[in-house]
Amino acid sequence: TNMVLELLSLTNPVFKSYTFWAGVLVIKMLAMSMLTAIQRFKTKTFANPEDLMSPKLKVKFDDPNVERVRRAHRNDLENILPFFVVGLLYTLTNPSAFLATNLFRAVGISRIVHTLVYAVVVVPQPARALSFFVALGATAYMALQVVLAGAF
Amino acid sequence: TNMVLELLSLTNPVFKSYTFWAGVLVIKMLAMSMLTAIQRFKTKTFANPEDLMSPKLKVKFDDPNVERVRRAHRNDLENILPFFVVGLLYTLTNPSAFLATNLFRAVGISRIVHTLVYAVVVVPQPARALSFFVALGATAYMALQVVLAGAF
Amino acid sequence: TNMVLELLSLTNPVFKSYTFWAGVLVIKMLAMSMLTAIQRFKTKTFANPEDLMSPKLKVKFDDPNVERVRRAHRNDLENILPFFVVGLLYTLTNPSAFLATNLFRAVGISRIVHTLVYAVVVVPQPARALSFFVALGATAYMALQVVLAGAF
Repeated sequence: TNMVLELLSLTNPVFKSYTFWAGVLVIKMLAMSMLTAIQRFKTKTFANPEDLMSPKLKVKFDDPNVERVRRAHRNDLENILPFFVVGLLYTLTNPSAFLATNLFRAVGISRIVHTLVYAVVVVPQPARALSFFVALGATAYMALQVVLAGAF
Repeated sequence: TNMVLELLSLTNPVFKSYTFWAGVLVIKMLAMSMLTAIQRFKTKTFANPEDLMSPKLKVKFDDPNVERVRRAHRNDLENILPFFVVGLLYTLTNPSAFLATNLFRAVGISRIVHTLVYAVVVVPQPARALSFFVALGATAYMALQVVLAGAF
Repeated sequence: TNMVLELLSLTNPVFKSYTFWAGVLVIKMLAMSMLTAIQRFKTKTFANPEDLMSPKLKVKFDDPNVERVRRAHRNDLENILPFFVVGLLYTLTNPSAFLATNLFRAVGISRIVHTLVYAVVVVPQPARALSFFVALGATAYMALQVVLAGAF
């Protein structure tokens, strides 16, 4: 009956691992904004008139370097944000600590790799596809466990 | 005083229902990535040079079938992700189980319908608008209850 | 040992503050959809053939007023949604109530200001940059605390 109390405590290795990786991935996502800003200034690509730092500049939306970072960032929104909720709910299903911590680690590391090969140094496929599917598979597995816990 | 402990336990029907629908909607969102990939391969529309599977292909950003799925996916980010946090916080306000489970069900079903009529089989309006507003209304109601619980 | 129980209770001023601001920011985000819809109808800019209300209209993707609201909305997804998870985990690290409630307040107010100066009344820079960085800084600080709590 003290289950929930223990499950969301940092003394629970599963929750501790979730906390660590969720924090790391939030920092990684915030870094995408910085990466986008760097590319915008480098290529003088600004989306709003009030951002133009010189009257000679015009708004621009199609710089490939900016758009690449923005695609990587959007991919984070699509994959990391759902992981955040499902990882927390999975923790509350009281899973095996070994399995859970490795699933969180798999998501965390593969999403960092995904950013590196997509938006930092472009690595040929299937690097990005592999990192994408490792995180997707781990998240989908946890989501399935969460659905089963909620259904029965 | 054991309130929180009980509120986030799967023995609480409200939390159990939240867990179920949150898991279902995460799987639904992950499926959008698959749907996008299917449309990309079908229409040979790839956004990155390293994704092109033939030297004859060029990057392409404006295929209407790909863009439709991407718009549906973005709409999920805008509506389902806020629901995840507000549904959990609403659960922690200890709401009526009848009301709460039906609100979660309304969000879950209407967001699945939204995807179906937007990105799977295009159904004339107001099908999409209706499914959009059912989920939005339920989420806004929960958000209001959460704000009131936090304010007073 | 009753720590977690207390941490997620509305009797904890930190959780109460988190609940309030999370609810407010969800409502703010849902309002972005309404703002987009208003701009779409004002400028008759619709992205889907089934949304066109007259046979004379065509789908359109480049209206600057619609796109401005959509950029503000996307910026919310990139910044507010990560705050939601990190704010909750930060609450579970049992932080100083004074610091935590002011961090939540800083994020809440600065993100509302960000929307106002970006998408409601365009205010020259650095208004948007400042509001952006206040929220980013507060979120990054919390994320760092969360990572440290999870790591040691």
